[in-house]
Amino acid sequence: MKKHSKPTILVVNDDGITATGIKALLEVMQEIGTVTVVAPDGPQSGMGHAITIGKPLRFSKVDLYEGVEMYKCSGTPVDCVKLAVNKVFKGKKPDLCVSGINHGLNNSINVIYSGTMSAAVEGAIEKIPSIGFSLDDFDSDADFSHCKKFIKQIALQVLEKGLPEATLLNVNFPKGDQIKGIKICRQANAKWAEDFDERKDPYNRPYYWLTGVFENYDKGEDTDVWALNHGYASVVPVQFDLTAHHVIPILNSWDLGNGEPEIERISGPDGTNLG
Amino acid sequence: MKKHSKPTILVVNDDGITATGIKALLEVMQEIGTVTVVAPDGPQSGMGHAITIGKPLRFSKVDLYEGVEMYKCSGTPVDCVKLAVNKVFKGKKPDLCVSGINHGLNNSINVIYSGTMSAAVEGAIEKIPSIGFSLDDFDSDADFSHCKKFIKQIALQVLEKGLPEATLLNVNFPKGDQIKGIKICRQANAKWAEDFDERKDPYNRPYYWLTGVFENYDKGEDTDVWALNHGYASVVPVQFDLTAHHVIPILNSWDLGNGEPEIERISGPDGTNLG
Repeated sequence: MKKHSKPTILVVNDDGITATGIKALLEVMQEIGTVTVVAPDGPQSGMGHAITIGKPLRFSKVDLYEGVEMYKCSGTPVDCVKLAVNKVFKGKKPDLCVSGINHGLNNSINVIYSGTMSAAVEGAIEKIPSIGFSLDDFDSDADFSHCKKFIKQIALQVLEKGLPEATLLNVNFPKGDQIKGIKICRQANAKWAEDFDERKDPYNRPYYWLTGVFENYDKGEDTDVWALNHGYASVVPVQFDLTAHHVIPILNSWDLGNGEPEIERISGPDGTNLG
Repeated sequence: MKKHSKPTILVVNDDGITATGIKALLEVMQEIGTVTVVAPDGPQSGMGHAITIGKPLRFSKVDLYEGVEMYKCSGTPVDCVKLAVNKVFKGKKPDLCVSGINHGLNNSINVIYSGTMSAAVEGAIEKIPSIGFSLDDFDSDADFSHCKKFIKQIALQVLEKGLPEATLLNVNFPKGDQIKGIKICRQANAKWAEDFDERKDPYNRPYYWLTGVFENYDKGEDTDVWALNHGYASVVPVQFDLTAHHVIPILNSWDLGNGEPEIERISGPDGTNLG
C-alpha cells in the first residue's frame, strides 16, 4: 500500500452480488479506501476452490451502490478473483482483498468447502493481502452491523502491517451484538457427519439432498469453535501450502522401490539429507 | 485394514466414470482388494473441494467393468466420496480411498483446484487412508500403463503402514515409460498466470474462457515440479488443516482491540501463553 493515498480494495463473496453480507462489507471498506466489487451473479456457497474450465464465463458491469465499481460474474468465487486481477485491475493488484461477509460460519474444516474463504485464498495466491469474513447467521436478512467495527480494525491492521508470505486471515463472528472481543485461534479439528435425504421425483426416480450435523472432536480452548461458542470473534491465520512437511521423513523410510529403479532420497524441510 | 482379509478399496476421480484413467486405477486396485467405484457421471475437473448444496444429487448403480461395484453421481468428486461413505459403505469405512488417475498433473498449487485431489482430501477427512494419482497427459486416451507398478507399490505401503493422522498422499507421474524412480517432495511454490480469452457470441455479447500459463517461482530441488521435470514420479504428503500456526504469535502482537473489549491472548501452538 502506498502511503498517503487511498488503498484500493477488492470485495468478493460467494452468496452473490445482491447479498446483504457483501453490502455490509463494502460499506465498511468505503470508509477505508476505493472499492471495487467482483461477485457471482447468484449463490455459489460450498463451491470451495472450484474454477470454471469446461464452459465460458459471463462477466459484466453492474450499478447497484453509489461510488462503487461493481461487476457480476457467472462463475465461482475464485473465478471472480481471477477476473478481477486480470480484467479489472489488469495486473496492478489491489492493496487488499476482502471476501464476505458470508451468511453462515466458515470455522474449522469449513474453510476448505467455503467459496468465501476460497476467494480469499485465491487473493493470497495472487499475493494480495486477503481476509475472509463470516457471520454465524444463514438468514438472507442477517444483521451484520455489530461486525463492522471489528472488520474495519482488522482490515486497517492488515493494510498497515501486511501479512506473512502465503498466508491470509479467516475471521468468523458470533451472532448477536454482544461480541466479547477477538481471539487469535487455530482451526478446530471438526467435521460434518453427513447424511443424504433421499426423495422421489414425480417420475418415481430417487434424488438426494446433502444434509448432516457438524461434529467437533477438539477439546482445545485455542480453537475457532471454542472462541465462537464463548462469544468471541475468531481470527485464524490460513495457509495454502498443503504440504505436510512433518510426514516427509516418514515417507522417506518407506519401501517404494519394489525392485524398480532406486528411490533417491532428497533433503528434508530442515535441510538435512534424509537418504 | 484387517489382516488376512482382502482390503476394501474406494476408487473415485474427477474426469468421470468412463475416463481411461479410472479404468487403469481400478485395474491395479483389483490386484490388491475388493473394489468399489463412485465417480461423477461427467467431467468435474477444476471443481476443487466443491460440494453440491443448492440442488439435489442423482446417484445410481452402473455396470461397466466385470467384478467391480460401480456408481455414478451427478455431483462433484467430493460429493462422490460423501455418497460412497454414507450410501455405499454405510459408515463401515473402506480400507483405502484412491482418486484418479487424473488426465493432467496436480502438482504444486494445483492440488487446491483439483477435483481428483479434493476427493482424496475428503477421504482423509473421513479418516480413510487416501491417495490421489495424476499423470502429465491431458489426452483422453493417455497411456497409464507405466504408472501401474508404482501405484500398486504405493497403495500396498499405505495399506501396510497407514498414514499419519489428517494427511494423505499426492502422487504425480511424468509422461512416458522412462520413470527414473519416486521422489518424496514438498509442493512447489508455483502458480497460474491467468489470462481470459474474450470472444463474442452470435448475439455479439462477450464471453470469456479461462486460460493461462503455469509459472514456477521455486528453485528448490526438493519440490514436485523439480522431480517431474527430471523424470521422477513425485509423492507429496498433504494436510487439510490450513492453520498457519507460525502466524499466531504475530497476530497476537497486533492491535485489534480498537478501544473495544480487550483482546484476550490465548496459548500458542507450543503451549506458551502469548498474552
